[in-house]
Amino acid sequence: MRVDIITVEPDLIKSPFQNSMMKRAIDKGLAEVHFHNLREFGQGNYRQIDDYQFGGGAGMVLMIEPIAKCIEGLLAERSYDEIIYMTPDAPTLNQATANTLSLSENIIILTGHYKGVDQRVRDKYITKEISIGDYVLTGGELAAAVLCDAVIRLIPGVLGDETSALTDSFQDNLLSPPVYTRPADYEGMKVPDILLSGNFPKIEEWRSEKAYERTQKIRPDLLDE
Amino acid sequence: MRVDIITVEPDLIKSPFQNSMMKRAIDKGLAEVHFHNLREFGQGNYRQIDDYQFGGGAGMVLMIEPIAKCIEGLLAERSYDEIIYMTPDAPTLNQATANTLSLSENIIILTGHYKGVDQRVRDKYITKEISIGDYVLTGGELAAAVLCDAVIRLIPGVLGDETSALTDSFQDNLLSPPVYTRPADYEGMKVPDILLSGNFPKIEEWRSEKAYERTQKIRPDLLDE
Repeated sequence: MRVDIITVEPDLIKSPFQNSMMKRAIDKGLAEVHFHNLREFGQGNYRQIDDYQFGGGAGMVLMIEPIAKCIEGLLAERSYDEIIYMTPDAPTLNQATANTLSLSENIIILTGHYKGVDQRVRDKYITKEISIGDYVLTGGELAAAVLCDAVIRLIPGVLGDETSALTDSFQDNLLSPPVYTRPADYEGMKVPDILLSGNFPKIEEWRSEKAYERTQKIRPDLLDE
Repeated sequence: MRVDIITVEPDLIKSPFQNSMMKRAIDKGLAEVHFHNLREFGQGNYRQIDDYQFGGGAGMVLMIEPIAKCIEGLLAERSYDEIIYMTPDAPTLNQATANTLSLSENIIILTGHYKGVDQRVRDKYITKEISIGDYVLTGGELAAAVLCDAVIRLIPGVLGDETSALTDSFQDNLLSPPVYTRPADYEGMKVPDILLSGNFPKIEEWRSEKAYERTQKIRPDLLDE
């Protein structure tokens, strides 16, 4: 998968791609991530990329021309499955969206900053808008890194142990059951006996019960879906 | 605000704190962020921090002892408003939680990795569990960076223009209205006349209408809250 990230703060999200899973995916050639600094497409001597919003109000807006120049350049080289804009006023990312996107060959991710991008960018270029949650971030950079992490880890061959991703929270609309490791007794806090029993069918049953209980308690909305 | 982040991948989230808003908040002395590499608290010559889960199953679990050692060390030095664990099986972060947390003096953020932490860590130390959304990430590191961004930007004095944060999405349970900047005409795509009218009461009315329309269309669930 090739990912082109268009951003005003490329340095802000370099480190997530230089460590851990995303680094390994890139090293293995399973993912290719390119950063495009929007400022290089800015206008005039000052490489202007934003301006005041029409109608007044606080916060700068990213202009359409630099973004158009960057996107057009990429589209001239290859076709893209999606041109994604990270913004809080969009449908929220969930595991199903991550699963679908993990099948893409090429995607562009545009990250907002300041007050967001000129609406005409969204009207003209964007094929998919994604929010990572109901909270506001300084920019879309971290949201783009989150999206990449959620998607890239699902590409076959990226995770060492593929069954691990399948038993994650959300893959079956249930939260994960509690997990325990050694020691079996930590200052009097004991691991549930069932997990030490070796009775694997019973253990699976216990885990399903606990997953359901936890979902019921913390996120009952997931059970209605 | 002082934030202590306990993680197995400190390098993964360094760059978000070395750029843009979070860097400025730290430079201004409004936020102080410390990374604690869990491996330094690991056991034995190999500094072991994880082990297989009891009861079988894929994925390693972070052990309680190294985490306990790290948290106890911090608690010996100062008191904390919250000890937060980033995990997908938890209540979801929203703007109200970010607002509340921005009033904290000291917080610890523990990030999971692999299959998560031993349940007894959660039972013994964690005062608040937070998910950033219904999707699975490789680790809690990016989730911690997202939480810090959402919270630190709300500390008074961090954003240059304080009214900017108040007109963000979610502060009033509505998504933002569309924004436009120059040029007024981009290849025939025109900015709505009303925004060029200079009639500010009408502009506010139009923005409220559009914010409501967009919320109704994309996130009707927000209107029910």
